[in-house]
Amino acid sequence: MLSDIELAQQAKLKPIADIARELGIQEDELEPYGRYKAKLNERLIERLQDRADGKLVLVTAINPTPAGEGKTTTTAGLGEAMAKIGKKAVLALREPSLGPVFGIKGGAAGGGYAQVLPMEDINLHFTGDMHAITAANNLLCALLDNHIQQGNALGIDPRRVLVRRCMDMNDRALRNVVVGLGGPLNGVPREDGFVITVATEVMAILCLASDLEDLKQRFGRMLVAYTYDRKPVYARDLKAEGAMAALMREAVLPNLVQTMENTPVIMHGGPFANIAHGCNSVRATRLALKLGDYCITEAGFGSDLGAEKFLDIKCRLAGLKPSCVVVVATVRALKYNGGVSKADLQEENVPALEKGIVNLQAHVENMRKYGVPVVVAINRFHTDTAAELAVIDRCCEEMGVPYALSEVFAKGGDGGMDLARKVVAAAEQAGQSTGFSCLYPDDIPIEAKLEAIAKNIYGADGVAYTAAAKRSLENIRSLGGDALPVCIAKTQYSLSDNAALLGRPRGFEITIRDLRLSSGAGFVVAYAGDIMTMPGLPSVPAAEKIDVDGKGAVSGLF
Amino acid sequence: MLSDIELAQQAKLKPIADIARELGIQEDELEPYGRYKAKLNERLIERLQDRADGKLVLVTAINPTPAGEGKTTTTAGLGEAMAKIGKKAVLALREPSLGPVFGIKGGAAGGGYAQVLPMEDINLHFTGDMHAITAANNLLCALLDNHIQQGNALGIDPRRVLVRRCMDMNDRALRNVVVGLGGPLNGVPREDGFVITVATEVMAILCLASDLEDLKQRFGRMLVAYTYDRKPVYARDLKAEGAMAALMREAVLPNLVQTMENTPVIMHGGPFANIAHGCNSVRATRLALKLGDYCITEAGFGSDLGAEKFLDIKCRLAGLKPSCVVVVATVRALKYNGGVSKADLQEENVPALEKGIVNLQAHVENMRKYGVPVVVAINRFHTDTAAELAVIDRCCEEMGVPYALSEVFAKGGDGGMDLARKVVAAAEQAGQSTGFSCLYPDDIPIEAKLEAIAKNIYGADGVAYTAAAKRSLENIRSLGGDALPVCIAKTQYSLSDNAALLGRPRGFEITIRDLRLSSGAGFVVAYAGDIMTMPGLPSVPAAEKIDVDGKGAVSGLF
Repeated sequence: MLSDIELAQQAKLKPIADIARELGIQEDELEPYGRYKAKLNERLIERLQDRADGKLVLVTAINPTPAGEGKTTTTAGLGEAMAKIGKKAVLALREPSLGPVFGIKGGAAGGGYAQVLPMEDINLHFTGDMHAITAANNLLCALLDNHIQQGNALGIDPRRVLVRRCMDMNDRALRNVVVGLGGPLNGVPREDGFVITVATEVMAILCLASDLEDLKQRFGRMLVAYTYDRKPVYARDLKAEGAMAALMREAVLPNLVQTMENTPVIMHGGPFANIAHGCNSVRATRLALKLGDYCITEAGFGSDLGAEKFLDIKCRLAGLKPSCVVVVATVRALKYNGGVSKADLQEENVPALEKGIVNLQAHVENMRKYGVPVVVAINRFHTDTAAELAVIDRCCEEMGVPYALSEVFAKGGDGGMDLARKVVAAAEQAGQSTGFSCLYPDDIPIEAKLEAIAKNIYGADGVAYTAAAKRSLENIRSLGGDALPVCIAKTQYSLSDNAALLGRPRGFEITIRDLRLSSGAGFVVAYAGDIMTMPGLPSVPAAEKIDVDGKGAVSGLF
Repeated sequence: MLSDIELAQQAKLKPIADIARELGIQEDELEPYGRYKAKLNERLIERLQDRADGKLVLVTAINPTPAGEGKTTTTAGLGEAMAKIGKKAVLALREPSLGPVFGIKGGAAGGGYAQVLPMEDINLHFTGDMHAITAANNLLCALLDNHIQQGNALGIDPRRVLVRRCMDMNDRALRNVVVGLGGPLNGVPREDGFVITVATEVMAILCLASDLEDLKQRFGRMLVAYTYDRKPVYARDLKAEGAMAALMREAVLPNLVQTMENTPVIMHGGPFANIAHGCNSVRATRLALKLGDYCITEAGFGSDLGAEKFLDIKCRLAGLKPSCVVVVATVRALKYNGGVSKADLQEENVPALEKGIVNLQAHVENMRKYGVPVVVAINRFHTDTAAELAVIDRCCEEMGVPYALSEVFAKGGDGGMDLARKVVAAAEQAGQSTGFSCLYPDDIPIEAKLEAIAKNIYGADGVAYTAAAKRSLENIRSLGGDALPVCIAKTQYSLSDNAALLGRPRGFEITIRDLRLSSGAGFVVAYAGDIMTMPGLPSVPAAEKIDVDGKGAVSGLF
């Protein structure tokens, strides 16, 4: 089979204006960016605001292996398959981050015959949204350091600055830096650090804002530092929010692209799923619901990270009600959860699969706690054996959960028709007013919210707090944080906070080492373990193989 | 009169597809970015390559005052006026940098009725070229630090890294930083610093590259560090150039926009004029020469910086031959050069003007040394008095240089028709094969090249070198730098290297404190004085007044 980028370059894309026209989007509601990308403007959003919503389908997954398990591929293929069974589906997906493209991954827009295109554009600069976020965040930081330099009227304590600079690059050397060196003309020295752009609160805000005005207000509410006498300093105290929002006036518009089979995709926003809420923008999801009979969306990493946050943060804040949750699993990943090393995953290993399948059971049970029908998608690999697939069949039978084998990687939409039919059946049974409810109410303390997630989703016995976390809790409570949902920053590799505990761990506590108020985004981040907010490059970075020829054709994105 | 942004928002823009069509550009040669911006692709460049060139007009200026003297405004207005006298003019201009927009300036795309539009887009993200440069430069830096971290097979000396990270932001706190702190997982600690994006060699390379393949080769040739045993390390040793070029595959395409009166503008690239060569890309200039009877372009700061480099670096490397040089001056700036403080410039002061006008004389004489006809454009302010304008008239008469009063700020093209007629007369007299020649030949040593510029253009008695500069000279010579043109980094406020010496300084030496080989761009940078490569924000940044409303309309850019 050809590589992803070779397949992508062979695909027959429709002009984006045609994709838009087929969706009933008018010419003046579209802002073209080249021939195959466009932004959808406020005129469209306003025109559609009273139209009835389609059904919302969330694609999530079991705990991923380090290689990734094809969630975006399954999502793209499910969208393509919907068209084959006569349903009008619109995908709502995250934009990939630029940094990881040069690290291990190469690219991140699906794979095989289930890709979102043009993949080179999407993986490189796309329509500039990430760069706008980088600029808005770094303008805020520059204004803050300039305020300190120019007399520091607010009395900002340089040791208590919360907002960090960002770059859309995997660059470990920037994790911990000292800025402001070189004497009095060159700023006030202080410790700082860079996070990758997708880990910023600016990104989280973009993904939760209802419109540009709301975006600006949220920017203004960002808690950026404390003063010497421990008073909070917000971005609005630096008069930063207007210029930040001006930098985002195009980034706030959702992007329209297509899959390899011309299924429309609204791709917008892409926050980290460990440090933030991990799903595309509210505006993209709402627009896809207006434009399609089905909006198919995904949330980052496993259901314990992405889906929990999608349901408890995004659906809560935006009033969304999913009609079906798809849990993607692979035989490989379940064997990995059963203890097989990465190198041996292509060997048949029924005992390991039987051991590891508890991970799938946990994710299915967890999703059912939200009152939404669940469908399992097995993303099939050619190494899967009949005996292994029989284990999957028996397990799903026992749980009474419908499942389908998905071969969208190799076959595109044709490989996802069974999955599509099962999703439609589940969603139609659920109907428009699904049984969906969030896991916890708004009006309980942060600790109670954390406990609800830890016990119900992670399977933990309870939650422990470090001394630093207890101090932060008090502080955040005093700033009104108790009313907000919580966003737990945790490893994606385990249901627990220990990446080494695979399968379905029991008898553990989650330890919260610190908390942080994302007052602009509107949630409290609780850190369970050391979460990397600035990735590094591997010993042989993917960048070394990426190239472009004289005609502009990119190679080495895979 | 309305503010620049108010005028810009009232202007009647033509769809960019119409501007392109009127230029004879075919639909598949245009990549639209929204409705009013587009990129011009390789198909167009190839189709036009055998077409005869139009005439090249360079707009430069006297030494600027801190407020700027309207060079871009004059250039835009001259382009508009050309249409009024029946000439097909295409402008080739630099893209503004984002950082300064939030500092003092607000915006930088001309002013009044002679602006390039859409000004909000151009001043904010435009088509993403600056962000692509930022990403390419910072990828190179990340690969370099990663190489050191992952075993340092090349033996790079962390104390001798030359390439610096960049950000398109005025952020003094990033001038001098320490990166790689936090222990062995977080990189190798070393001193680093950020420059503003337009000051990078990546930007200089974009502006000199003939095509994407040439761009990639130049990236590979960038000298990025030295090893512990003082051997040069190039970007190609890090296998960086392919991925860097892939990031630039859209940025390498020139952008098409328009003036307020719908004159086509090719806006592409924008290197600093003190640290780099200060003019738009070679590709933009070449394309404008193919598309118009006249290509009107400008070079940054005064003629001693921008024009000298345009003529001695860009024209030399790209084989361009200008037919006319326009020197823009203002009565205000000449009075400033005569010793009047900024606050008193609106008062009539004939003696100060008579004293300061030597600055204009020097710039006119300098430009004549290149064998090209010169025209003076007086950018008129309402505070200019008849007695002051008489001084200008007398001076130009004595020099035998044609001059015109330009009122394009207040009147658009109508205010520049006299200037346009004089430019056309000069250029037509010069004909296609102008008398143009560079100031110095290729095959003399760096010191001789520096002396040629210092004596002939700056009016210096000679050039002095610090000990560090002497060491760098030897080193650069050993790396083959003697064959390259030189790019002097110098204050823009004086013909000398001392910003306080106004008018036409005499009896001084230029001191070169260090030199650096820009081996990818293909020139040697010689530093005369401390040149700021990362600006700071003022005590009240323009960012505080920039805002955007719920419809996306930006205010506070002026």
